[in-house]
Amino acid sequence: MRQSEICIVDATIRDGGLVNDFRFNDDFVRTLFEINCISGVDYMEFGYKASRRVFDPEQFGKWKFCRDEDIWAIVGDKPNGPKIAVMADVGRCDFHEDILNKSESPIDMIRVATYLDSLPGAVEMIEDAANKGYEVSCNIMAISRGRDKEIKEALDVIGQTPANVLYIVDSYGALYPDKAVRLAELFLEAAGKYNKKVGIHAHNNQQLAFANTILAHEAGVTWMDATCASMGRGAGNCALELLLGYLENKYEGSRYKMAPLIPFLDEYMQSLKDSGVVWGYDLQYLMTGLLNHHPRTAIQYTKEKRTDHAAFFREISGNII
Amino acid sequence: MRQSEICIVDATIRDGGLVNDFRFNDDFVRTLFEINCISGVDYMEFGYKASRRVFDPEQFGKWKFCRDEDIWAIVGDKPNGPKIAVMADVGRCDFHEDILNKSESPIDMIRVATYLDSLPGAVEMIEDAANKGYEVSCNIMAISRGRDKEIKEALDVIGQTPANVLYIVDSYGALYPDKAVRLAELFLEAAGKYNKKVGIHAHNNQQLAFANTILAHEAGVTWMDATCASMGRGAGNCALELLLGYLENKYEGSRYKMAPLIPFLDEYMQSLKDSGVVWGYDLQYLMTGLLNHHPRTAIQYTKEKRTDHAAFFREISGNII
Repeated sequence: MRQSEICIVDATIRDGGLVNDFRFNDDFVRTLFEINCISGVDYMEFGYKASRRVFDPEQFGKWKFCRDEDIWAIVGDKPNGPKIAVMADVGRCDFHEDILNKSESPIDMIRVATYLDSLPGAVEMIEDAANKGYEVSCNIMAISRGRDKEIKEALDVIGQTPANVLYIVDSYGALYPDKAVRLAELFLEAAGKYNKKVGIHAHNNQQLAFANTILAHEAGVTWMDATCASMGRGAGNCALELLLGYLENKYEGSRYKMAPLIPFLDEYMQSLKDSGVVWGYDLQYLMTGLLNHHPRTAIQYTKEKRTDHAAFFREISGNII
Repeated sequence: MRQSEICIVDATIRDGGLVNDFRFNDDFVRTLFEINCISGVDYMEFGYKASRRVFDPEQFGKWKFCRDEDIWAIVGDKPNGPKIAVMADVGRCDFHEDILNKSESPIDMIRVATYLDSLPGAVEMIEDAANKGYEVSCNIMAISRGRDKEIKEALDVIGQTPANVLYIVDSYGALYPDKAVRLAELFLEAAGKYNKKVGIHAHNNQQLAFANTILAHEAGVTWMDATCASMGRGAGNCALELLLGYLENKYEGSRYKMAPLIPFLDEYMQSLKDSGVVWGYDLQYLMTGLLNHHPRTAIQYTKEKRTDHAAFFREISGNII
């Protein structure tokens, strides 16, 4: 694979925002944008285009809603920065009103997040975004719960939309490497048929986010999501620093650089941790990943600062220890 | 592969001992032995047979030296427990005196740890241990630094000894999955020729210890090392809880069980952490792994509680950030 085919998406603000209710200050976001530029990151995801009818703006930082004016305030005219992506969830986005025409917007790509059972809504949003002039990805969440037949059918549906990228999203951190590679092959087959690209967004419940990402890449996946210090819901994501280091090692004359990210990790990410924001691999996330469950029970366990993993595992699995 | 061919080695006391100078109390070791029995762990490594001429017994807990009488005191007559292994480093073990005949000893297996450039010493120790009646493995450390030709030659040398198991040891946590699998294939080829088994001992510098372990397993490797909560030198090892969960998921009617380990993790491993013992993945270990360096500089960084990763990376890589 040529390095030029690769697209790295920094999803720190978007997936990380799920941990701190999107309360990143402008200095944080602006500095990250600048660092991503130097590190060679191709896209930076700023957050969600969430509905203000569904979510109370008082309860969240502004990156839950990603108003274009807030993005403009960060990036200015962004002559050399990474491209800008936002995520839009099926059923939780007033896309007709909140997503403007590309020609008026700082945003380059709309990432439509859907479950396998909400495809019609996804198709509508993909078409809307493409008609407005955006690049579009379709991110199929909780993919570890899908049966092959169901996934193939979904890919045939999305394949016929104008979406540019089909994303494997391991929301539950449940995929073992062999399954991640098999899914990559399944997605790549559909992508070949419909002239799309394939991406992967992994979660680290079983310390496999980085491994699954690079194994999918070796199988032909070119779009890879990562976040600074793995920040993201629950066990977090593939660490951007790991991924950049890997790419720098793998590709001679790599345009990706890990070193510029390090001071940001030491200063900005460490400050978040010091302020009490908690994410990352832990035993409760291993457990939900192992059981192929949504991590919500483990997130609740973490919030309550519980330390009785044995009782928790009994609760979620029915196992007798 | 049949599940019956798998051997899981719990290396918590041995590799974890490198973090706390082997100061585990008897209750810890005895409880872990009992838990390993219930979890289906096949071998428990108790520590090193280190030379008391090289290492001052005043400076270390007793598991640095693993006297047979200390092991007997833990295991009694061990009717149903896991088999017992100890590690012996080339050049750091008075094996003629300190390794007794198997018929008098609670130990089942001697794991001879060697670098590629200390093979003659390893061969002597392997033969001594086999002559005394033990199962023997040869654990080739720092394998990520070896060239294929050199590794093949080493495997031909060890292949002709009575060692039962040839171990891939990624001491530096530098192996990416593709390299881990290629090494597994190289080792398996030699193992086939000489009628040996192959094992893997991974380090977690790049959050790949678990992934590399199970990928090697899928390639045919049957001996897998792991430690509770990943406890081990520097970034630590493949977590035993991840590995047991994986095996339980993979093999129907698995004899491996993760659940019995959980209370031990919550109580005993957490106590170690609470008492200030530090191990596990962190940015400084990513850096030495990425550069294929011994982790000693990162261990020192950790001990000094430094927080300037950017300066550290410049020191070890010569990069200008």
